[in-house]
Amino acid sequence: MEEPNMIVTVGQNADSKWVEQELTARGLWFDRFERGGRVQLAIAPHSRQVDRDELLHIRGVETVVERVSLHPLVDAQPAVVRVGDVEVGAGRPAAIIAGPCSVESEAQIASLARVLARMGVRFLRGGAFKPRSSPYAFQGHGREALMWMRRAANEQGMKVVTEAMSAEEAVLVTELADMVQIGSRNMHNSALLKAVAKQRRPVLLKRGMAATIEEWLSAAEYALLHGAPSVIFCERGIRSFDPSTRNMLDIGAVALLAHVHRQPVLVDPSHAAGRRDLILSLSKAAIAAGASGLMIETHEDPGHAMSDGPQALLPEDLARVLEEVDHVGR
Amino acid sequence: MEEPNMIVTVGQNADSKWVEQELTARGLWFDRFERGGRVQLAIAPHSRQVDRDELLHIRGVETVVERVSLHPLVDAQPAVVRVGDVEVGAGRPAAIIAGPCSVESEAQIASLARVLARMGVRFLRGGAFKPRSSPYAFQGHGREALMWMRRAANEQGMKVVTEAMSAEEAVLVTELADMVQIGSRNMHNSALLKAVAKQRRPVLLKRGMAATIEEWLSAAEYALLHGAPSVIFCERGIRSFDPSTRNMLDIGAVALLAHVHRQPVLVDPSHAAGRRDLILSLSKAAIAAGASGLMIETHEDPGHAMSDGPQALLPEDLARVLEEVDHVGR
Amino acid sequence: MEEPNMIVTVGQNADSKWVEQELTARGLWFDRFERGGRVQLAIAPHSRQVDRDELLHIRGVETVVERVSLHPLVDAQPAVVRVGDVEVGAGRPAAIIAGPCSVESEAQIASLARVLARMGVRFLRGGAFKPRSSPYAFQGHGREALMWMRRAANEQGMKVVTEAMSAEEAVLVTELADMVQIGSRNMHNSALLKAVAKQRRPVLLKRGMAATIEEWLSAAEYALLHGAPSVIFCERGIRSFDPSTRNMLDIGAVALLAHVHRQPVLVDPSHAAGRRDLILSLSKAAIAAGASGLMIETHEDPGHAMSDGPQALLPEDLARVLEEVDHVGR
Amino acid sequence: MEEPNMIVTVGQNADSKWVEQELTARGLWFDRFERGGRVQLAIAPHSRQVDRDELLHIRGVETVVERVSLHPLVDAQPAVVRVGDVEVGAGRPAAIIAGPCSVESEAQIASLARVLARMGVRFLRGGAFKPRSSPYAFQGHGREALMWMRRAANEQGMKVVTEAMSAEEAVLVTELADMVQIGSRNMHNSALLKAVAKQRRPVLLKRGMAATIEEWLSAAEYALLHGAPSVIFCERGIRSFDPSTRNMLDIGAVALLAHVHRQPVLVDPSHAAGRRDLILSLSKAAIAAGASGLMIETHEDPGHAMSDGPQALLPEDLARVLEEVDHVGR
Repeated sequence: MEEPNMIVTVGQNADSKWVEQELTARGLWFDRFERGGRVQLAIAPHSRQVDRDELLHIRGVETVVERVSLHPLVDAQPAVVRVGDVEVGAGRPAAIIAGPCSVESEAQIASLARVLARMGVRFLRGGAFKPRSSPYAFQGHGREALMWMRRAANEQGMKVVTEAMSAEEAVLVTELADMVQIGSRNMHNSALLKAVAKQRRPVLLKRGMAATIEEWLSAAEYALLHGAPSVIFCERGIRSFDPSTRNMLDIGAVALLAHVHRQPVLVDPSHAAGRRDLILSLSKAAIAAGASGLMIETHEDPGHAMSDGPQALLPEDLARVLEEVDHVGR
Repeated sequence: MEEPNMIVTVGQNADSKWVEQELTARGLWFDRFERGGRVQLAIAPHSRQVDRDELLHIRGVETVVERVSLHPLVDAQPAVVRVGDVEVGAGRPAAIIAGPCSVESEAQIASLARVLARMGVRFLRGGAFKPRSSPYAFQGHGREALMWMRRAANEQGMKVVTEAMSAEEAVLVTELADMVQIGSRNMHNSALLKAVAKQRRPVLLKRGMAATIEEWLSAAEYALLHGAPSVIFCERGIRSFDPSTRNMLDIGAVALLAHVHRQPVLVDPSHAAGRRDLILSLSKAAIAAGASGLMIETHEDPGHAMSDGPQALLPEDLARVLEEVDHVGR
Repeated sequence: MEEPNMIVTVGQNADSKWVEQELTARGLWFDRFERGGRVQLAIAPHSRQVDRDELLHIRGVETVVERVSLHPLVDAQPAVVRVGDVEVGAGRPAAIIAGPCSVESEAQIASLARVLARMGVRFLRGGAFKPRSSPYAFQGHGREALMWMRRAANEQGMKVVTEAMSAEEAVLVTELADMVQIGSRNMHNSALLKAVAKQRRPVLLKRGMAATIEEWLSAAEYALLHGAPSVIFCERGIRSFDPSTRNMLDIGAVALLAHVHRQPVLVDPSHAAGRRDLILSLSKAAIAAGASGLMIETHEDPGHAMSDGPQALLPEDLARVLEEVDHVGR
Repeated sequence: MEEPNMIVTVGQNADSKWVEQELTARGLWFDRFERGGRVQLAIAPHSRQVDRDELLHIRGVETVVERVSLHPLVDAQPAVVRVGDVEVGAGRPAAIIAGPCSVESEAQIASLARVLARMGVRFLRGGAFKPRSSPYAFQGHGREALMWMRRAANEQGMKVVTEAMSAEEAVLVTELADMVQIGSRNMHNSALLKAVAKQRRPVLLKRGMAATIEEWLSAAEYALLHGAPSVIFCERGIRSFDPSTRNMLDIGAVALLAHVHRQPVLVDPSHAAGRRDLILSLSKAAIAAGASGLMIETHEDPGHAMSDGPQALLPEDLARVLEEVDHVGR
């Protein structure tokens, strides 16, 4: 499924006004070009999806040409993908990924996994290798943290999701995780996309903080082309001019990926909002818009979290989110 | 209700680490300032709402000062406001405002009003005076259109909402409309805010395309200060770098206004998406996030609409939106 | 002069690769569309300016259609315009507009005008009616301030530039000013553009904080269509995600307006930077990029300025700016 | 040199109005916080640079605390750095980096290097490993291209600058290049910053497409902390809402880095503009704003360039840029 991005040429003696009305009726915006009686209509990317053949049958249309898709493998990916025995995508129960921003100790992750599993959470997340803007910030407990997380997940029958930031980490992570996350800061990092893809694990691809949808789809194409069995998208807010939320959740992008591109797409309300008191609302909105799941930072003692504590939910708050989200998803 | 925007000063010999953990535990982000053992923590605007007194009781905190609110009248506005006999706000049925981008003829608006009223829509909208980027685009049928709309609404027991773009129009519009809309292009136009406010009608205030939340609240303060009985906010998407939707719906702003500022806030998914096939999803997301209603462009024959046809819904599509939204709102 | 925004159709049996290379050689970016051997190349707006006929002569090109200009009167405006007896535009000495953010007293503006005139500044500016985000901020001394400014300017043989924010103010301002400013917050306010245009004075049109170049040109078209004898553009920075400057000066837009659209364009480094220590550098950059002048906030006692004091220059600092700018402009 | 980012506390019985005027007089913007007679003034980041001690001497000021710098090594870097025997920074001749987007053949780069050296260009650039949004776009000739470039540079006594995108490439690049470029897409890639830094070569650090200045400085801190002898910044435009230029050159950031942070900063007008006809103007503006040099894509036959042909200058056009820039720089 690609965006309807076409150029419609009106026949030399045809009634271009008629053609324009027919396009409008189909929900299509266009820019008008002309010279010497010749009219062409370039359909804007923020138009409704429509079939080329349908347009060819409008009286007066001479040709319809389409933009070449830059991501054919993504276009061909099914709307439901598998991570081990768990299906993620349209029509499946919301995939919930929960856990701390950073894995801090074996006890911490084991205890949290127990609580999460009891709520029905299938995916355990936690940072072992942490991307940080400052080199002086805590960078993660590395391989050890991975092992703690694997053990905790095994005990509870959960899947592990964690981030890799280099080719080297991709190898380590793949040994122990079921799905590898590419973070926002690395969405444009094609070397990493290739390295992770070679490990042949499903990829959770976060959107870059100023990436267009087309660039996001092209990043997924890198992963699929180089061997990843599937890509699950994760929207986490883009950078904007307003400081009142940490990032700006692009809910339209979620709807677009889910309903037009028919891709599995999750939402991370924790990074989008950056504030605990909006996570419930944004989670419900995400599912309502078509998201197939959520990624939510959770911590049993946020005051002592090693990173991003202010946005972490307590397990009991997560329980409420899951309950309300379940209602919306029906 | 204003944003938690404070500066916390730690006592000279107190344990600042302890204070920082306590702030984090409460969901607060802060920047750290220091010099000569003196530590101050400036709480970021994208933090959770918290009470000042609560912070003062943390061991080691010396003082907590708050940013002076720039919009006390907005802060004091109740969460539910009235437009005639209809209540809009938290806990009330979703307020639905529907109608064409431009009012095109008396027959058009009468027919559409009939259909909309049958669905339970309480507010009829339609452009009489149109804000257009180009001076050559259709500018609206003016006063005549207002009268057509008033008559159509009266027949169906509906309220009329329409936009005014100048002091002169504000007078004309007030004669015939129940609520006056300030459009995105005019949110920063304080002369218009004052002129409309003087007419003492509820104001529907759309957000400017690059306005911060604080500026939006301050624009509402202009209206309340100069005589408007109430202001209902309407989010319609901000301008961003991505062309795949016409604008970017800031769903976090909706949640923030609804749940933190406790203001009545609507969403206009038509302008946000600019594409018909996302309106259902964005409407559901809006209500899930806390919106008290929706403003949706509707047209019985979008192919012949005089403006914004591609984003207009057919009445039967609107019916489906209302049904699904009703489920989410429960 | 309009942007080269064209669709090039390649002949059915022609070599599209050849055509693509020829377009690239001319500095043109394009998106490729195709279906059934038919190739069309849509030239991106951020392409170099090129003549349509030149493209038609490329071997294999069948047709070239252009986007219809939405601002023919702007396209036809000469590159040099007059404000009274002063010429502003390419090849003329840099037009300098200086003065306080707000006119505070008769003595203040008289004294400042004297100092500025001595430096060779030809335009005196000052706020009489002030656009403010908050209704509680100082809103200007109104008509009285206008008269003080007019008298001060007359004594020094200067022109007066000031802002109007409503139709009513437009009349008052026109009586006493030589050029009427439309501020950033009102660039999209077409009612005001029309009201000001009717007064038949040159218009200084600031760019909206998130306006595209096309919207800015269309706003100017409103003014010219409704009677303004000329429009001078003024770039003052757009809104961005980075707080380190107050706004983000779009120097590319300045170059584009000056060299491609061939319009008279000024730069307001005071609002762009929001910080006194960058005004010299940004002023030099503006002139180097093709600006025909500068608008700089100046105050003899910034600590007591009623608005925007932190960004105001002292007259002696302005003198240094003028000197260095003069070197760059040569 | 860090940003003036402070919190000023006014004494309990002092005159806060006086303090505010004194701050304003010094070019400082602030937000006002208060409670129970206690007033604190938080100085905005877009304020002029000022010394803390100066503020402490204002009558009524009790304490002044400063934000802790997140990049002390950058703050300590000298304003002039060396790449081999060439000095780059304030007061030195503009450093010119020129060459093709992609190195295409040994003959191409040898011929171009000859022409460039004759004009006085000291740095030869060229892509060997290419970052591309699409996996189907040309990815560069790799190590071979590096060797061609090294040989060409040696023959002409030039320095080589090229990009590395992975730890592996960093090793290859360091063998043959004098300075390693980190591209926009990788500015947030801390794993790469560390890998490159370990090679102990000067780093040319492009700004991420939506990176704040603080994040850019923190990325440089990663490089310096992990062993890079020096970092030269390169502004290449940020992502914005306006399609008329490919990116938006942040000239204020250039002025800020050059004059406030006192760092060596270059500008890449080719990527910023994306259009050949603005490169001259933007180059002049860059130098006028304080840039210590330019990076300009150059190609002898842009029509056959393997990437970014439309923005490449012909050598003769570059010659004109150098000449005019030389005048501005004086």
